[in-house]
Amino acid sequence: MRIVIRNGTVVNTTGASKADVLVDGERIAALAAPESGLADGWAADADRVIDAEGKYVLPGGIDGHTHMEMPFGGTSSSDTFATGTAAAAWGGTTTIIDFAVQAKGTSLLSTLDKWHSKADGQCAIDYGFHMIVSDVNDGTLKEMETCIDSGVNTFKMFMAYPGVFYATDGEILRAMQKARETGSMVMMHAENGIAIDQLVAQALAQGRTDPVQHGLTRPPELEGEATSRAITLAKVTGAPLYIVHLSSAQALDAVTAARDTGQNVFAETCPQYLFLSIDDMAKPDFEGAKYVASPPLRPREHQAELWRGLRTNDLSLVSTDHCPFCFVEQKELGRGDFSKIPNGMPGVEHRIDLLHQGVVRGEISLQRWVEISSTAPARMFGLYPRKGAVQPGSDADIVVYDPAARQTLSAATHHMNVDYSAYEGMELVGKVDTVLSRGRVVVDADGFHGNAGHGQFLERELSQYLI
Amino acid sequence: MRIVIRNGTVVNTTGASKADVLVDGERIAALAAPESGLADGWAADADRVIDAEGKYVLPGGIDGHTHMEMPFGGTSSSDTFATGTAAAAWGGTTTIIDFAVQAKGTSLLSTLDKWHSKADGQCAIDYGFHMIVSDVNDGTLKEMETCIDSGVNTFKMFMAYPGVFYATDGEILRAMQKARETGSMVMMHAENGIAIDQLVAQALAQGRTDPVQHGLTRPPELEGEATSRAITLAKVTGAPLYIVHLSSAQALDAVTAARDTGQNVFAETCPQYLFLSIDDMAKPDFEGAKYVASPPLRPREHQAELWRGLRTNDLSLVSTDHCPFCFVEQKELGRGDFSKIPNGMPGVEHRIDLLHQGVVRGEISLQRWVEISSTAPARMFGLYPRKGAVQPGSDADIVVYDPAARQTLSAATHHMNVDYSAYEGMELVGKVDTVLSRGRVVVDADGFHGNAGHGQFLERELSQYLI
Amino acid sequence: MRIVIRNGTVVNTTGASKADVLVDGERIAALAAPESGLADGWAADADRVIDAEGKYVLPGGIDGHTHMEMPFGGTSSSDTFATGTAAAAWGGTTTIIDFAVQAKGTSLLSTLDKWHSKADGQCAIDYGFHMIVSDVNDGTLKEMETCIDSGVNTFKMFMAYPGVFYATDGEILRAMQKARETGSMVMMHAENGIAIDQLVAQALAQGRTDPVQHGLTRPPELEGEATSRAITLAKVTGAPLYIVHLSSAQALDAVTAARDTGQNVFAETCPQYLFLSIDDMAKPDFEGAKYVASPPLRPREHQAELWRGLRTNDLSLVSTDHCPFCFVEQKELGRGDFSKIPNGMPGVEHRIDLLHQGVVRGEISLQRWVEISSTAPARMFGLYPRKGAVQPGSDADIVVYDPAARQTLSAATHHMNVDYSAYEGMELVGKVDTVLSRGRVVVDADGFHGNAGHGQFLERELSQYLI
Amino acid sequence: MRIVIRNGTVVNTTGASKADVLVDGERIAALAAPESGLADGWAADADRVIDAEGKYVLPGGIDGHTHMEMPFGGTSSSDTFATGTAAAAWGGTTTIIDFAVQAKGTSLLSTLDKWHSKADGQCAIDYGFHMIVSDVNDGTLKEMETCIDSGVNTFKMFMAYPGVFYATDGEILRAMQKARETGSMVMMHAENGIAIDQLVAQALAQGRTDPVQHGLTRPPELEGEATSRAITLAKVTGAPLYIVHLSSAQALDAVTAARDTGQNVFAETCPQYLFLSIDDMAKPDFEGAKYVASPPLRPREHQAELWRGLRTNDLSLVSTDHCPFCFVEQKELGRGDFSKIPNGMPGVEHRIDLLHQGVVRGEISLQRWVEISSTAPARMFGLYPRKGAVQPGSDADIVVYDPAARQTLSAATHHMNVDYSAYEGMELVGKVDTVLSRGRVVVDADGFHGNAGHGQFLERELSQYLI
Repeated sequence: MRIVIRNGTVVNTTGASKADVLVDGERIAALAAPESGLADGWAADADRVIDAEGKYVLPGGIDGHTHMEMPFGGTSSSDTFATGTAAAAWGGTTTIIDFAVQAKGTSLLSTLDKWHSKADGQCAIDYGFHMIVSDVNDGTLKEMETCIDSGVNTFKMFMAYPGVFYATDGEILRAMQKARETGSMVMMHAENGIAIDQLVAQALAQGRTDPVQHGLTRPPELEGEATSRAITLAKVTGAPLYIVHLSSAQALDAVTAARDTGQNVFAETCPQYLFLSIDDMAKPDFEGAKYVASPPLRPREHQAELWRGLRTNDLSLVSTDHCPFCFVEQKELGRGDFSKIPNGMPGVEHRIDLLHQGVVRGEISLQRWVEISSTAPARMFGLYPRKGAVQPGSDADIVVYDPAARQTLSAATHHMNVDYSAYEGMELVGKVDTVLSRGRVVVDADGFHGNAGHGQFLERELSQYLI
Repeated sequence: MRIVIRNGTVVNTTGASKADVLVDGERIAALAAPESGLADGWAADADRVIDAEGKYVLPGGIDGHTHMEMPFGGTSSSDTFATGTAAAAWGGTTTIIDFAVQAKGTSLLSTLDKWHSKADGQCAIDYGFHMIVSDVNDGTLKEMETCIDSGVNTFKMFMAYPGVFYATDGEILRAMQKARETGSMVMMHAENGIAIDQLVAQALAQGRTDPVQHGLTRPPELEGEATSRAITLAKVTGAPLYIVHLSSAQALDAVTAARDTGQNVFAETCPQYLFLSIDDMAKPDFEGAKYVASPPLRPREHQAELWRGLRTNDLSLVSTDHCPFCFVEQKELGRGDFSKIPNGMPGVEHRIDLLHQGVVRGEISLQRWVEISSTAPARMFGLYPRKGAVQPGSDADIVVYDPAARQTLSAATHHMNVDYSAYEGMELVGKVDTVLSRGRVVVDADGFHGNAGHGQFLERELSQYLI
Repeated sequence: MRIVIRNGTVVNTTGASKADVLVDGERIAALAAPESGLADGWAADADRVIDAEGKYVLPGGIDGHTHMEMPFGGTSSSDTFATGTAAAAWGGTTTIIDFAVQAKGTSLLSTLDKWHSKADGQCAIDYGFHMIVSDVNDGTLKEMETCIDSGVNTFKMFMAYPGVFYATDGEILRAMQKARETGSMVMMHAENGIAIDQLVAQALAQGRTDPVQHGLTRPPELEGEATSRAITLAKVTGAPLYIVHLSSAQALDAVTAARDTGQNVFAETCPQYLFLSIDDMAKPDFEGAKYVASPPLRPREHQAELWRGLRTNDLSLVSTDHCPFCFVEQKELGRGDFSKIPNGMPGVEHRIDLLHQGVVRGEISLQRWVEISSTAPARMFGLYPRKGAVQPGSDADIVVYDPAARQTLSAATHHMNVDYSAYEGMELVGKVDTVLSRGRVVVDADGFHGNAGHGQFLERELSQYLI
Repeated sequence: MRIVIRNGTVVNTTGASKADVLVDGERIAALAAPESGLADGWAADADRVIDAEGKYVLPGGIDGHTHMEMPFGGTSSSDTFATGTAAAAWGGTTTIIDFAVQAKGTSLLSTLDKWHSKADGQCAIDYGFHMIVSDVNDGTLKEMETCIDSGVNTFKMFMAYPGVFYATDGEILRAMQKARETGSMVMMHAENGIAIDQLVAQALAQGRTDPVQHGLTRPPELEGEATSRAITLAKVTGAPLYIVHLSSAQALDAVTAARDTGQNVFAETCPQYLFLSIDDMAKPDFEGAKYVASPPLRPREHQAELWRGLRTNDLSLVSTDHCPFCFVEQKELGRGDFSKIPNGMPGVEHRIDLLHQGVVRGEISLQRWVEISSTAPARMFGLYPRKGAVQPGSDADIVVYDPAARQTLSAATHHMNVDYSAYEGMELVGKVDTVLSRGRVVVDADGFHGNAGHGQFLERELSQYLI
């Protein structure tokens, strides 16, 4: 199968230029200057020619933080690997990295097996795994090495959720030492869960049970504190550190200060922190529950700081933390007790489009948009140059994007398996036109052409941001 | 003329990958994955095939700060546009941006004409101009617009050299307002020359006349101060700011703090600040004069900070401030009075090689090397994507670089027109193998094939780093 | 003359406690615990016994920054030494330090003589002088030594007012070197006047002539910049530095950062910056002219920062910068051209009372009130322990203060020689009850008992804050 | 009993001046200026006249951090309240505040009773208690109120020593909320004990068992981290915070940053951190065990930072953390396992003298010496003006200090009940001459005249530093 994409504007992290792209099989075979005329020959020979005039030709999006069919408090996130990856493809994301979740008392390798069996044959696009380490002991530390050998080299830990995922500072220290030794990386959910749980208990005891209390009992200072603490532990051990779903100015300040010294500290934020706020959690009639995630949505003034962080590269990239729970029956578990609302929001489908609004509004440049949604995650998570760039030899994960199209987000039209949209009615500029996953057109004007099982598991290299 | 470069590793700012490159005329026509076999066809048809196996294929270096045949205190820098650009080519630099120097009382446009007539027909590689503004008045502010229209949109001012180039804070403010209005950029020599001149006068009055006094009378605090002041003036006016030849931790701290807030502040450093120190200026027998430049070389501990700044992108790129004066007869003008030593050092030939030592020593990554020596200057100074990248449609300014070769720097072998080397005897890993300038091989194993006049003047776009 | 003050609460910088005070002649002879009964004996013997039950017994206020009968742009500030010092006494201030103003081209010593002749025999309270240095040259640097020997060891310089008081950075550097050498101190008016004058000219050229433009053309960033620059020059020379009339968060940040490192940098603010704002300058009908001073009043949000600075000791003390000009005929000089409005505001009478509002509102503690209005200026300006404390051996400059009394500020009732009050109608809690100047009751319930000529010139020691 | 101290120089926090002091019974009755002649009359009437010519008259020292006969790991600190307070008096300290130590599972009030019964009738000087809270629960939180009512309003918690004193962040949060509510204060041992214990276990597992490992396994970063965390928890709750025994630049930086914002955060350091270093812990033959305390002695370069902190008031005062263990039999418990060395060092006797070396060396001023050793602790811990000042009405806790005397520290001559001196052979300038405790001469040239039981328990007010 040979496909030629002609007349488009290829965007990479340093800028944009016109180029024709030849896809041969699963890979990009060549790029040519339009004026070279080379594409004429390619087109003559091609199975399909896509005209990208007036459109961007982008590397497929990489969402480094998703939770498909994740068990949480007796229920599971509502997207399966099948539905979630199809929705991702609709939105121009051609790779996800999902979290395998170690249950306390089980092994990392059995966890990985389990997640492989969940995902195998189900995914519409390529995927990798991070590992959530709930149990740090000699055994799991040893198992980390095997995980790394099989392409899973990022290990998420939690400073929140005592009794569930919570790791002590001593456990974090040990895992970081192992990361230092192996070149792998610890990812951190940085909230001081011990202090937060106290505030939660006090709120409930005082009858403050509405969804907005979820936000009020998790003040941004306690995200800043935990971030700062994780950075210190990383410094003491010499390990790199990746902060997941950074949501607040306080946490960003800690990351910025560390990065100024050249410490290998990285952070992602998520679209919900850039576009939504604690005001959404205060919506009446339990509506606020739709916006309950951890860390919580913050007061609106944090948004400008996060955009600033994306511009200054103190925030390296944007992931979704996609973890959808339906409002009916799932979110509703927390009526009368906000602490029982399943934590998480849907988002995998709209990351590329939402970030494009940042370009439209002048918050970020066109090339930075491509960087934070594709190239940086590829490099951060050891997928580059196979993923993350439109260049010869790379996988033909390509998005043809129409920057002038308009769309309105709605649960009625989205493809994620969840009964609400966090962005219901929001009008966007720009829209995915055509999506290739490893050389195959999975989305175009005629709809979805992908299938469960096309997506392959990606054994990832070590992060390419470390020096 | 068609050239194919095969089997090399193309390096760009995000990483490295194997690709074959087809050059057609002055431009890059296409890149292909080796396994695509496309290069077989190209090679069959080519005038020349270069085997880059085991070598890097890099975008030609861009040196954003040179002073060819610059008048200074009754003498002139010793490289002409002809000799200087040839030396640049030898070292893998295929573009320079030189400074046109307004003399007080003359116009910007006549200055520009003068510099055009100096360079026209002389250069071996492409070149652009920055404008040094010595006289800020209604006329010159108006002329800035015409300069911009003719591709010169960066205006250097001096907080040092009272009576020569010095601009008051009020003049700087006015020029910045004009820059803000036009989207152009002020470049700043940031040293508090008013205070420094006092220290210089005191040193001379006290009989401290040796070259090292040049360094001691220009303390890094006074570079930090001026940098900070320029940043404030930029903030008040809303203009972007580019700090030239940043040399000290204090100045870097000021830039870092501003960049953390997202202010459009950029800085370059130079190889001499990364590899040499004030100890060199203290060499006996007036030898120190070889190292006299402004700002001066700093105590050794500043070097680590500058490398850190390059890693964290608080320093955006590396230029040379190439401004050679021969030791005999030129530097010697300052025997017995350090303030009469012509300020400047040679360097245009060795920037790429010296920075490669940073890769070898683990100070910077391979891709960062390419970024700071080519892509970032291209974007900063409005030359991208014509320059700064090995990609279809770009000028075929290409360096084939052998990372394993060894060389020793020496005045006996270098090509710059100056009678000493600041790095005499220094052993380097890596060496330029072949250099193309706009599709023409100007340097290869057989020597130099370029000629004066091949190089063209580049009308530059506005900086692409601003948002 | 022996006076006993009984039953009062003596407040010093560390706290408050009940004590009886014996004044013998011009000095405080003793303090006794009430329960010791010693005051019974003293009272039997005394010329006067003051009952201070329910009242504070405070060291007399010291206003370290006044401008009596100061020439400014063809007019003079409206208070003479006679009227100004009487007004000060009414408000509980028993010492002022006024500025002798060197005119360019004249000598420091002749300036000092001139100011001595203005003040001699006129003052109701004790007074000292700072010296404004307008001309830095070998002669004036030498004269600084003579000034120091005669008790004037603080030298004010200006980074604003080019052509009038403005000193270049080189001149400042030289004066600081002399200060370093002699242990004396440079005081700095820190605004970037060179840049400001450009903004002023632009405003006038654009027809923006109202008083509020005075504020808008002197942005706080340019005070922050100048403060930061002065700090660097002080660092380079090793000299201490005192920032006068600090008005903005930006300048405070610079001072705070320097003080964190232990550098000998100090700053005062003034009541007008704590209680008034740029909104006052925007009052219609040229009313805003009443509030024109330099630096200008700032946006309201700066006030909280300044109070914070007083709490954290980043601001060492509060002076008034008392420099009154009548609205009629003086301020009116600037109708139609804000740059012609005489710069300055009245305030010497109300500093103690206004700062007491800070105690009432919980901004500062009782003891901090005493420190910033008396003890700190005494120590800063070499008057302690003669002034600044209620303790044996000190001058009997004592204020009995009624914290519960109420008063309303008004031009109708104040004693300063100026036709408006900047605080017209403001209601205050607390009021001066009785004031002693060197053992003599100059103000009590019966009115003013002082006289011109009671006040003596104070030869000051070097600052006692330096280590 | 009436005592007159004549001709001395009374030093308080703002400076020094000559004054005669009349002591009547337990209190200071009056201070008089020598030239008033009042002391002639007092002397005629006095039981004793002390000539302080050439000497300082200081408020008695207050050591806010001691551990007399404290249980630790099966042994007890070697000074009893009797021996420890006598040694304190020898060194010019007339008040200690000791820590009552709640054992897990016991009540605060029973703990307090226990400590009262230990100290009652034993002390040579006055004393107060802080409470160590090991168990945070509804009961102890309630008991805090009763403690406060009985004069114990400072509650120490530990972020180190898991399983012994360690409190979780949630427990700290709850205690801080109670402190906020009651106006009391939490004191914090700020080291990340959870991470440290991991490092300790690793060291032991690797056979690194020498005393210096105590220091190496407790890196300063982990003190900085815990300090920063405690500050955040204080901010979230609105409570004041007092950091005990701050030892490192990292922790000081965290305190400085918080204080710059006006947050009520305070810290003490101890003489051992100012004068000793980790090098002492590395002494051979287990000698290093003498210097084992927590936090550990730091690399020498931290000392300059701590002195700087004392100058800038980022460190409010100096306590000793006096907790002596004999080398023989006690320290020796840790031979072969540094983690078993009892933590603590002797020091209560030498604080005043050691800090005086700071005056001699120019690190701090004379008045700052008095402030950090007496007045600040009095105000910090609610004892002022009863303690901490030489002024009428205060307790006659007075030290006559000879600044010119010389002494050599040694276990052979000190009065603490411990078999070694941490400062053996150190030569000091300055020496205590005479000490009064509540009007009684307890130390003079003839030796010790105090007795167990003279010292009274002090019910303390709330901290006077809060606003």
